[in-house]
Amino acid sequence: MSNGTTHLYASLAERVAEAIRGGALKAGDRLPSVRRLSSQQRVSIATALQAYRHLENQRLIEARPKSGYFVAARALPLGEPATSAPPAAARFVGVNQLVTEVLQSARDADVIPLGSACPGPELFPNDKLLRLVHAEGRRRPSLIGEYAISPGSERLRGMIARRSLEIGCRLGPDEIIVTNGCIEALNLALRAVAGPGDTIALESPTYFTLLQIIQSLGMKALEIPTHPREGISIEALELATHRSGAVKAILIMPNFQNPLGSLIPDQNKARLVQLAEARGVAVIEDDIYGDIHFGAARPRVAKAWDRSGNVILCSSFTKTVAPGLRVGWIAPGRRYQEVAMLKFISSIATPELPQAAIAEFMANGGYDHHLRRLRGEFARQVQQASAAIAEYFPKHTKITRPSGGFVLWVELPGGVDALELFRRAREERISIAPGPMFTTTTRYRNCIRVGCGHPWNTRMEMGLMRLGRLAAELV
Amino acid sequence: MSNGTTHLYASLAERVAEAIRGGALKAGDRLPSVRRLSSQQRVSIATALQAYRHLENQRLIEARPKSGYFVAARALPLGEPATSAPPAAARFVGVNQLVTEVLQSARDADVIPLGSACPGPELFPNDKLLRLVHAEGRRRPSLIGEYAISPGSERLRGMIARRSLEIGCRLGPDEIIVTNGCIEALNLALRAVAGPGDTIALESPTYFTLLQIIQSLGMKALEIPTHPREGISIEALELATHRSGAVKAILIMPNFQNPLGSLIPDQNKARLVQLAEARGVAVIEDDIYGDIHFGAARPRVAKAWDRSGNVILCSSFTKTVAPGLRVGWIAPGRRYQEVAMLKFISSIATPELPQAAIAEFMANGGYDHHLRRLRGEFARQVQQASAAIAEYFPKHTKITRPSGGFVLWVELPGGVDALELFRRAREERISIAPGPMFTTTTRYRNCIRVGCGHPWNTRMEMGLMRLGRLAAELV
Repeated sequence: MSNGTTHLYASLAERVAEAIRGGALKAGDRLPSVRRLSSQQRVSIATALQAYRHLENQRLIEARPKSGYFVAARALPLGEPATSAPPAAARFVGVNQLVTEVLQSARDADVIPLGSACPGPELFPNDKLLRLVHAEGRRRPSLIGEYAISPGSERLRGMIARRSLEIGCRLGPDEIIVTNGCIEALNLALRAVAGPGDTIALESPTYFTLLQIIQSLGMKALEIPTHPREGISIEALELATHRSGAVKAILIMPNFQNPLGSLIPDQNKARLVQLAEARGVAVIEDDIYGDIHFGAARPRVAKAWDRSGNVILCSSFTKTVAPGLRVGWIAPGRRYQEVAMLKFISSIATPELPQAAIAEFMANGGYDHHLRRLRGEFARQVQQASAAIAEYFPKHTKITRPSGGFVLWVELPGGVDALELFRRAREERISIAPGPMFTTTTRYRNCIRVGCGHPWNTRMEMGLMRLGRLAAELV
Repeated sequence: MSNGTTHLYASLAERVAEAIRGGALKAGDRLPSVRRLSSQQRVSIATALQAYRHLENQRLIEARPKSGYFVAARALPLGEPATSAPPAAARFVGVNQLVTEVLQSARDADVIPLGSACPGPELFPNDKLLRLVHAEGRRRPSLIGEYAISPGSERLRGMIARRSLEIGCRLGPDEIIVTNGCIEALNLALRAVAGPGDTIALESPTYFTLLQIIQSLGMKALEIPTHPREGISIEALELATHRSGAVKAILIMPNFQNPLGSLIPDQNKARLVQLAEARGVAVIEDDIYGDIHFGAARPRVAKAWDRSGNVILCSSFTKTVAPGLRVGWIAPGRRYQEVAMLKFISSIATPELPQAAIAEFMANGGYDHHLRRLRGEFARQVQQASAAIAEYFPKHTKITRPSGGFVLWVELPGGVDALELFRRAREERISIAPGPMFTTTTRYRNCIRVGCGHPWNTRMEMGLMRLGRLAAELV
């Protein structure tokens, strides 16, 4: 969807959604059949069907086999976490040991994988990609025998550039550098704009590896209050960046943040970008989950509002196309030269054979089809896990309502110690990610992140049931 | 070849070599036929042939079609550079801009590639590796769909471990971490043992990207005098590390150093390792050229003398199997945990599909055959380039006599400015690497590195001829 315009199905879906939100349609109400909707609204059958599918992904409506579409049952019987309130001081990070322990616990095949943000491998077009790897390698044997060149495959950069309109920017292929996954991109971005001792502001809670990168570079993390749906507090950022040089960069995941799933509204993205520019603070944007939107519209990146090249955009095909190939990218804006040099120094270049395969996958159209299917899967998996948590977890548990991505943030009743829950769950071969991994502070001791990247099945449900009981024992 | 023992062909080759060095056989003398040598020395025909092939690689003898084997023409009519003498102070690095300029000059297909240390892509088993990539991907589709796990493919680590006997160590698979090429390995090693402001001792001249890494990490480089055949001066290292904490790590390429091609003798490797251990200085060893030996024996790594885990060994398949796949590895010794954590933070893991292909290539035997052929190619290419330089370059030019790798270090008569030569050569579509790239000091202004990684042909010869003329204009 390009800037400003929306597809027909999306606007149709939006009209139905408004009727539900406004109360004109109530929980359990039957919706017009696809055929009826099509003739009522003068759209094709395909468009009507697509509109309903999107509303299903948003969990506003549900399909009942052989009965048609209905307005979904009312919201989850669980509260939603409040805006986070981390202490207002930057600090050096020390989460490594816990992260190692948790990641090791999630490794074995017989563990129920609720702890990781890695999707199930069966969700990806592995056979197709392998065929493309083979075909591209035959076409250009030098992809194996020759040193890759630093900015990455020209064709892949071209495909990324072409799609950049959909995320609200207009990137050129020469503004993009391909990286070894998004994590390398984030390392390069941080190193390009900050040095040891500098402070990086970021959401709280946040993805633990961001904290680890900051730690390994000798920088300090300043955690900013973050709303579970609307993301980082712009007011808090205004305060934090008031003194010149107090904050060197803002590192954010505006779209479906890990672990909250929050989505910064457009007006706040605009404010954040303007604020950072005015205060001389760099913005590093991690958009790795942006393509996994449950609603009809692909949310825009903060970089869409960037007029001066101050926003460094990082993303990857790791969560959407091929976790095992580790192809990410960075659009460094006005820090292009610094980032290109650091990329060369860190790993010379990213291998081109997988890039050629992904470029072909994007060019021949398999990519869009796959993404649509994948979004539906993740939306369903998140919904099913949410329902199971509502059913099995102790009273007063709160959970997030992400509108994209595939993780849930669960706030357990105050007395539950997530580290203890993690250890007990590990003994029962269930992996979870305890809240203290996601902060440099002492917060989130009663929180866990539940990953919903794996297809839903009885085993996952049993895992959540058992986890709910373990949590109840700790209340 | 394992520690202490040598193959039959190698000892036979050594006896012939001694006869040549001692003067019993003179330049142009005809050698016994393979059959005759076999019966004289009571070895098989195959062993006799292998001995001659190794002497050919060492350029001590030459085969003349339909005539047999002859003692090679006398040595090059050029001197050899003296031991380098860099100033005795550590300094921050600033070579980035020149490196960018030189690398950009080497990019175009129509440039004669004497500037890079990248071999010609046609020297590698690209088709075979592509077939193996395809076969391994079919066997395990999760290699594409699943996150790779941090230390790397178990099978590849097993193959590296098995071959570690040949380089004089006994590494276990669990002591190895697979990396995105050797450059990532070296970054991890440096970050594991030193921090901003620390001093790293290394050979002078040295591979420019090592200087760039040191610069990017805010460390200082201390260049140590280095002999063009015997490598880094142990005496100078003793002086430099005398004061506790003055040097944090020694970063060396003991086998066929880039750019000198020097090979540290075993006794000096032993001394260096003991010295570093006694002084509490880490050793980081880059062995990327170690497999490209022209002589019969694979030189041992310095880590062979490491008893305490103080040597971090880094290597790669980039120069020997597949430049485009960028698969390297690190054996961090007692810094395993730190390196494993830094690897996770820097790039999570290395993609496993190319690793699986390389492991299969090593397991099914294609690897050894390929390596033998490749070593012969590189030896010939180095010899041909040396001969061309002897023929076309100004009087009083000096060049190195590497016994492995594929680069030559050329010292031009004092008045020649290598930067000016670089610029004039670039205008004629010839790429070279000027000496100042290889130092933080003001040395080597009259030196260039000539890469011999590409198959020899008229174009390469014309390039060197033209370069010699350009150099003569600058004398």
